[in-house]
Amino acid sequence: MSKEKKKYRKINLHLPQHLSVLKRFPQALLPKDIGIILAYTDITKNSVVLDSGFGSGFLAISLARFVKKVYSFEIREDFYKNGLKNIEKSKLDNIRLIKADIFTANLKEVLDIEDNSKIELITLDLPQPERAIENILNYKNFLAKNCYLVCILPTIEQLKNLVLFCRSKGFLELMTTESQLRDWQIKENACRPITTQVVHSTFLAIFIIHNEVEDKNLK
Amino acid sequence: MSKEKKKYRKINLHLPQHLSVLKRFPQALLPKDIGIILAYTDITKNSVVLDSGFGSGFLAISLARFVKKVYSFEIREDFYKNGLKNIEKSKLDNIRLIKADIFTANLKEVLDIEDNSKIELITLDLPQPERAIENILNYKNFLAKNCYLVCILPTIEQLKNLVLFCRSKGFLELMTTESQLRDWQIKENACRPITTQVVHSTFLAIFIIHNEVEDKNLK
Amino acid sequence: MSKEKKKYRKINLHLPQHLSVLKRFPQALLPKDIGIILAYTDITKNSVVLDSGFGSGFLAISLARFVKKVYSFEIREDFYKNGLKNIEKSKLDNIRLIKADIFTANLKEVLDIEDNSKIELITLDLPQPERAIENILNYKNFLAKNCYLVCILPTIEQLKNLVLFCRSKGFLELMTTESQLRDWQIKENACRPITTQVVHSTFLAIFIIHNEVEDKNLK
Amino acid sequence: MSKEKKKYRKINLHLPQHLSVLKRFPQALLPKDIGIILAYTDITKNSVVLDSGFGSGFLAISLARFVKKVYSFEIREDFYKNGLKNIEKSKLDNIRLIKADIFTANLKEVLDIEDNSKIELITLDLPQPERAIENILNYKNFLAKNCYLVCILPTIEQLKNLVLFCRSKGFLELMTTESQLRDWQIKENACRPITTQVVHSTFLAIFIIHNEVEDKNLK
Repeated sequence: MSKEKKKYRKINLHLPQHLSVLKRFPQALLPKDIGIILAYTDITKNSVVLDSGFGSGFLAISLARFVKKVYSFEIREDFYKNGLKNIEKSKLDNIRLIKADIFTANLKEVLDIEDNSKIELITLDLPQPERAIENILNYKNFLAKNCYLVCILPTIEQLKNLVLFCRSKGFLELMTTESQLRDWQIKENACRPITTQVVHSTFLAIFIIHNEVEDKNLK
Repeated sequence: MSKEKKKYRKINLHLPQHLSVLKRFPQALLPKDIGIILAYTDITKNSVVLDSGFGSGFLAISLARFVKKVYSFEIREDFYKNGLKNIEKSKLDNIRLIKADIFTANLKEVLDIEDNSKIELITLDLPQPERAIENILNYKNFLAKNCYLVCILPTIEQLKNLVLFCRSKGFLELMTTESQLRDWQIKENACRPITTQVVHSTFLAIFIIHNEVEDKNLK
Repeated sequence: MSKEKKKYRKINLHLPQHLSVLKRFPQALLPKDIGIILAYTDITKNSVVLDSGFGSGFLAISLARFVKKVYSFEIREDFYKNGLKNIEKSKLDNIRLIKADIFTANLKEVLDIEDNSKIELITLDLPQPERAIENILNYKNFLAKNCYLVCILPTIEQLKNLVLFCRSKGFLELMTTESQLRDWQIKENACRPITTQVVHSTFLAIFIIHNEVEDKNLK
Repeated sequence: MSKEKKKYRKINLHLPQHLSVLKRFPQALLPKDIGIILAYTDITKNSVVLDSGFGSGFLAISLARFVKKVYSFEIREDFYKNGLKNIEKSKLDNIRLIKADIFTANLKEVLDIEDNSKIELITLDLPQPERAIENILNYKNFLAKNCYLVCILPTIEQLKNLVLFCRSKGFLELMTTESQLRDWQIKENACRPITTQVVHSTFLAIFIIHNEVEDKNLK
């Protein structure tokens, strides 16, 4: 009936230099979403971040520019190998890429957090983040008193599962959102929004895990 | 510095059958914008519409499905010739395509509004709509007491000129807006918005011309 | 933790006169969504529409401005009573408001489609539209060969159920979308989008029911 | 004519703790926009930032969590006084708030950049940023070889003036954009985007100033 017309148009991802030098796999998180994580959590230069999966490393590398240390898990061989190269290209020395399964890894053995640093942000860009969270919760003494959890999920079904799971765990719900850019064409007599744009990359859910273990340690 | 990455993606315009059968020039108004005109004005089956420029005829033909009569001006030879063909394809008999310049045309001579019908909607999809409006205002006795004016303008500069002009004329300002669709992918376990979308086609400004001439006629 | 700041701001719904005169219940469909239905289906002045539930009547009354006849079902007593008043206010004589349950109504008895008119558009703004569709499919001889079906559904779960149901029935899938307006403030030296806007009212799913019964009748 | 209906709804700004503790003036930059600056520039823990005007300090304080040093100018007495308090609340010791006019200040005297640090990011959230840029360009030896410039401008007129000015200066144009969040309501059987949202706070323009002075210094 209604004949479907299709058009091809250019999309500009605006990658900054610290990302554009990296080899990128298709599902790489976009800076617009990385910006949400940087702006809506309370991490600082002194923060330790736990990240999984590394993927192309866009998130881990963007965060490592600013924080003290990023521990990132990657189970896929090809992502891990490319990851080591991307970290080298980034010239950052505060990312530790760990080839292990975040669903089952013994964090006590795998992470060698030397000082008393506590994880202040967990970023999960993988299917079934609930399984990663269950494993991480076995190592509560590694988590800060108020540890941010950010999950990156492309579909509504995944987002809903994660949000309902986090509520059942009593985590504090901060945001469930998507971000969108609207680029502008600026010309002397012809300013207008760009015709075609990426309007969806992923959903983001941000929670705080109130950690009583750390609470007690502090007393 | 930041290397610009580009991607090509498909865009679905969702043309209904009454539009997909037509030959389309690049600037054709999209149905999402035509819908705004149909929904936010008070036209009915009995309305007479004055339209310019005809272009591909998407707007004139979409309106003519519903209203009594559409008078449409087109000055460009190629658009006019294709317009006659598109009207034939539409199988509608209530569109009169007029090859004349709306900036200067003598509406009294060109329009042969036989009965006492009054124009209830003016749609202007052309640069410098102010010049068309100035000419149309010379023929106020053709306009209904409250005549809607919709201007279709791709850039902010055009939109601003038009809005300030209409305010100076004392027209009633109803809306200055853009419309945007967000299409969804629905799958058993993977519902998400479509990645890439047309986010800007045009701005729309909707005014009401309070017409005192018609007012007096009615007394 | 993160203290939630809240602000109250004005939202302008831009109701045209034919809707602003009506008494409105909270869930009334907005013109932006009505426009999608008018623009993306192939209905004309000769079309017959089947609508349910009537609600405040915004959709039925907007459609009746243009089409031949609208049959609208409403089961709730308060909506039905207000509906009769709203139809009177609209001064339209081509809407028949039927107090019956679209899930079970005998359309043959309830609709008295005198001539050979066929329904060209079905609009369902109610929970569980699948139940209405199942009932309507018992009366295929009332449907045009290609009958548009538009479902108006506020949540993703409803949208997904409906889309998967329609696919299982073999309907032709045209669009699954949301529409959004972006209003602009136009000032001499301060043009900018309005700060706060309605960004979600409902999802819209548009299908075509290929009706073989009508097909045979035509031969 | 069309009666304007208005509604008041709640808007959640999702301020993280490091911002929610601050006293906020109405025009404070939102985290969604701060995130764009953090994600699309190449600043790191070692970066020096020049910021003006301080305002409520949301941007300066958000940046100072991550970078080495933020110099921020504020000329308004009330903003300056509140700014000192907000910096104290932030517990950050790497922000220097300077009560001076960025349009005319002698940066050599006012900034006492002790070591050889160079400014890697300039953020301008003020009317007429061109005047600030003209002044800053008198002190090119303070700027890094590739210095990011981000201008925060609420209106299209300001954005256009700035972009045309930066092009005339030969700066590298990276992005001219707006960012928008779409928050989601997640319920067991009722997931949907939030009805009303902030859709415009500001435009953002991001440029790179290629600085030949620094270039020569490096040789």
